[in-house]
Amino acid sequence: MSSAFATSDLDALGALLDGCAAAAGPWAALPPGARAAAIRHVADELDAASSALVPIAVDETHLPVARLNGEVVRTTSQLRLFAEVLEDGAYLEVTIDHPDGGWPSGPRPDVRRMLTPLGPAVVFAASNFPFAFSVAGGDTASALAAGCPVVVKAHPGHPRLSAATAEVVTAALGRAGAPEGTFALISGEDAGRAAVVDPRIRVGAFTGSQRGGRALWDLAASRPDPIPFYAELGSLNPVFVTPGAAAARCDEIVAGFVASYTFGAGQLCTKPGLLFVPAELLDIDVVADAVRSVAAAPLLNEHIRTGYDAVLSALRAHPAVRTVVDGSDGEAPSPTLLATTAAELLTGRADLLVECFGPASIVVTYDDEPELLAAAAAFDGQLTATLHALDDDPAAPILLDLLSRCAGRVVWNGWPTGVSVTWAMQHGGPWPATTTPTTTSVGTAAIGRFVRPVAYQGVPDALLPAGLQEANPLRLPRRVDGHLELP
Amino acid sequence: MSSAFATSDLDALGALLDGCAAAAGPWAALPPGARAAAIRHVADELDAASSALVPIAVDETHLPVARLNGEVVRTTSQLRLFAEVLEDGAYLEVTIDHPDGGWPSGPRPDVRRMLTPLGPAVVFAASNFPFAFSVAGGDTASALAAGCPVVVKAHPGHPRLSAATAEVVTAALGRAGAPEGTFALISGEDAGRAAVVDPRIRVGAFTGSQRGGRALWDLAASRPDPIPFYAELGSLNPVFVTPGAAAARCDEIVAGFVASYTFGAGQLCTKPGLLFVPAELLDIDVVADAVRSVAAAPLLNEHIRTGYDAVLSALRAHPAVRTVVDGSDGEAPSPTLLATTAAELLTGRADLLVECFGPASIVVTYDDEPELLAAAAAFDGQLTATLHALDDDPAAPILLDLLSRCAGRVVWNGWPTGVSVTWAMQHGGPWPATTTPTTTSVGTAAIGRFVRPVAYQGVPDALLPAGLQEANPLRLPRRVDGHLELP
Repeated sequence: MSSAFATSDLDALGALLDGCAAAAGPWAALPPGARAAAIRHVADELDAASSALVPIAVDETHLPVARLNGEVVRTTSQLRLFAEVLEDGAYLEVTIDHPDGGWPSGPRPDVRRMLTPLGPAVVFAASNFPFAFSVAGGDTASALAAGCPVVVKAHPGHPRLSAATAEVVTAALGRAGAPEGTFALISGEDAGRAAVVDPRIRVGAFTGSQRGGRALWDLAASRPDPIPFYAELGSLNPVFVTPGAAAARCDEIVAGFVASYTFGAGQLCTKPGLLFVPAELLDIDVVADAVRSVAAAPLLNEHIRTGYDAVLSALRAHPAVRTVVDGSDGEAPSPTLLATTAAELLTGRADLLVECFGPASIVVTYDDEPELLAAAAAFDGQLTATLHALDDDPAAPILLDLLSRCAGRVVWNGWPTGVSVTWAMQHGGPWPATTTPTTTSVGTAAIGRFVRPVAYQGVPDALLPAGLQEANPLRLPRRVDGHLELP
Repeated sequence: MSSAFATSDLDALGALLDGCAAAAGPWAALPPGARAAAIRHVADELDAASSALVPIAVDETHLPVARLNGEVVRTTSQLRLFAEVLEDGAYLEVTIDHPDGGWPSGPRPDVRRMLTPLGPAVVFAASNFPFAFSVAGGDTASALAAGCPVVVKAHPGHPRLSAATAEVVTAALGRAGAPEGTFALISGEDAGRAAVVDPRIRVGAFTGSQRGGRALWDLAASRPDPIPFYAELGSLNPVFVTPGAAAARCDEIVAGFVASYTFGAGQLCTKPGLLFVPAELLDIDVVADAVRSVAAAPLLNEHIRTGYDAVLSALRAHPAVRTVVDGSDGEAPSPTLLATTAAELLTGRADLLVECFGPASIVVTYDDEPELLAAAAAFDGQLTATLHALDDDPAAPILLDLLSRCAGRVVWNGWPTGVSVTWAMQHGGPWPATTTPTTTSVGTAAIGRFVRPVAYQGVPDALLPAGLQEANPLRLPRRVDGHLELP
């Protein structure tokens, strides 16, 4: 990895963070349109570099070319969507209160509020999406769009791709007029930890394991000056099938389930880890046949493989678990299917509720509706929870309500894998899905993690930031004297 | 204090939190209009009880009747403003993406996102605003409005007022149809700490000292399942006066400064703690005369008085500080005025940059513009920073930019005390002003601390929450397919 693009040296880190801190003011001060143009330029250059980057990604991650090509498209359209967010401007939450002597709580001065960048951000890249959740992924895109310089801590699973991607991003930002220091890459756990506690870093974001994310989150919280740190930590993503849905389309559900949990060799934080099905309507052999038809695929790296093997061994050895399909122990594991019962889970078997990052999932049979409802009520924070039901299923409203209490996203008659990058997407949830349930790491609202409000009281119009000036020169949506106004 | 309204018993706390958890679903499920009506009813009942409550407040806090009467108005109009927020509905951030096969990052399903209550909240009341930042204050109002049941930990500085206020709130909520358990009062540090780490509590808010707030924040962060915890910790609130402003209206500025820092006997988190003035234009005797004309006033309680005396003694003993006006050491202290120079501060005297909660402030003289700019750049997170300048002051734009980097609110030619409760108000800031710079504890945006997003993917219209249904039965502002729409 080129040292110009990924320092792991702590002295060099200091100089790099100085550059980042120096860039914060100028990058934040660029008009939103200029920042949008720079981000679009990054997207264009990444698209242009795709044919050079994808082969490195294939080599380092063992993911299929088609999947990686699609991921580049996802990554660059994500960047372009954040450029749209900047041009839209609603994320600034411009709010203007004119002076009002008759304001109920007492005479009110002129107060104008908008959101402003938090300052330099450190982003910890994930291993499983080497483009979309890595160097130029969603955290980087939303932080850059917000106006924060970004230091990415490269994931060790794809170091050459990280360096090559960073080179493209850095060059594109430079050509688009972004201040030097707006973007940098670092590598190594020591450098990552040093960045999290460095006073120049004002915010952090992470996607990865619960253990790693919690450690970094604790580190950020332990600073003399704590900073916001957003960690997305994975999920069990339970799927619940009502008797009605199972009776109507069991085969379709089984096929969807197997395709979803084996997609990307199960290395997705939205992989369905548990499928609740009515015992009397399930033919487990049908599921097993579908699982056996899925080809083996190598995992991302040795570290992931070791973790997968360890969790899977523990699950298979669990007295309440039956192994239905044995995944191969070869170089590339084939999918594993496990089974248990809701009755077992409901006796408080927390050791069954662990994320198994790889191509394995558990079919959980339940006996009746009370057991189904009790199971749906038993989960803590999840990125997703899925319900397969009929539109007129009497239990559907109750189940939807229960699932919305634990999950950031509730999926109906679909599958949780494939997180669309849109305005309405939510990728987050209460602990242990994330550290910060009020936020999302995918979708346009992700930009909100990197901004803080500033109010200006009584400041003359000409001295206000353009976004707050009376004439609305940036044509922003605003709330004025309590009323929403579109430009 | 009536045990019915403030338990400090840990067994009783368990039962109380059970009630709170049981209320969470029904309180959250009330239509926004019903929750608004309940909150308005609380405001009405508090207004009606004002003549009974204010004398208790006078007795317990030593604050003047007029100030306390005003605070009741502030408190009840704050509740009514949050009722308006519910009726407005924009805080729900309803976002609808219809299915789109041509979506750039890949075919998009139907995704609909809105905000939903986090669940039971614990609120730690402050001592200095026994109504507006206490039992029925801003944190309670915004959490209740968001749909979260609230457990208030009473401030020991006004236990009888806390119990009496809680009685009014509980009765009013009950009469308005809120589920039992929607509101409760607890007392004692042990009960407060137990609530912060209790799994039934999903979010916390605090207003008070840096030491106390940090301890609770650390506790929340140390949970096996960390929760959002918002602590507002106070501030130095520096005020900068340019030579132009000093030359034009020095007397007016001096009068305003003295009035602001001695208001409420200086026991406000927005008290101006430092006034930067040009050395050559300041007649310190004019300031001293103004200070001497302010009457002595008792502090809130013994605890505040002890803390004030300790910090003030350290400041007075500081080699770089000159005592200009000696506050009396009597039962009720009169204001103290201290002085130092910007040159001293800029040598890194962090021991001068401590909040002194009470009627004392420091005049800081500077020699030239570079020293003024250096001082303005030297502050860490503040709730407020104030600039007195002329509209055409060449340094004004630079100073405003510097102050917006450290402060949540930038005040122009005014004073930071008197935080108006409005749509645009921001009461927060980077550490050490608060633990969470992305939020506010005053103003309508404070509701955002108590909600989290949930997205529904592919859910049939009839099974969606009303706020997300296609026909928009709640007439909410929405973003549909990327476009903002007003109802």
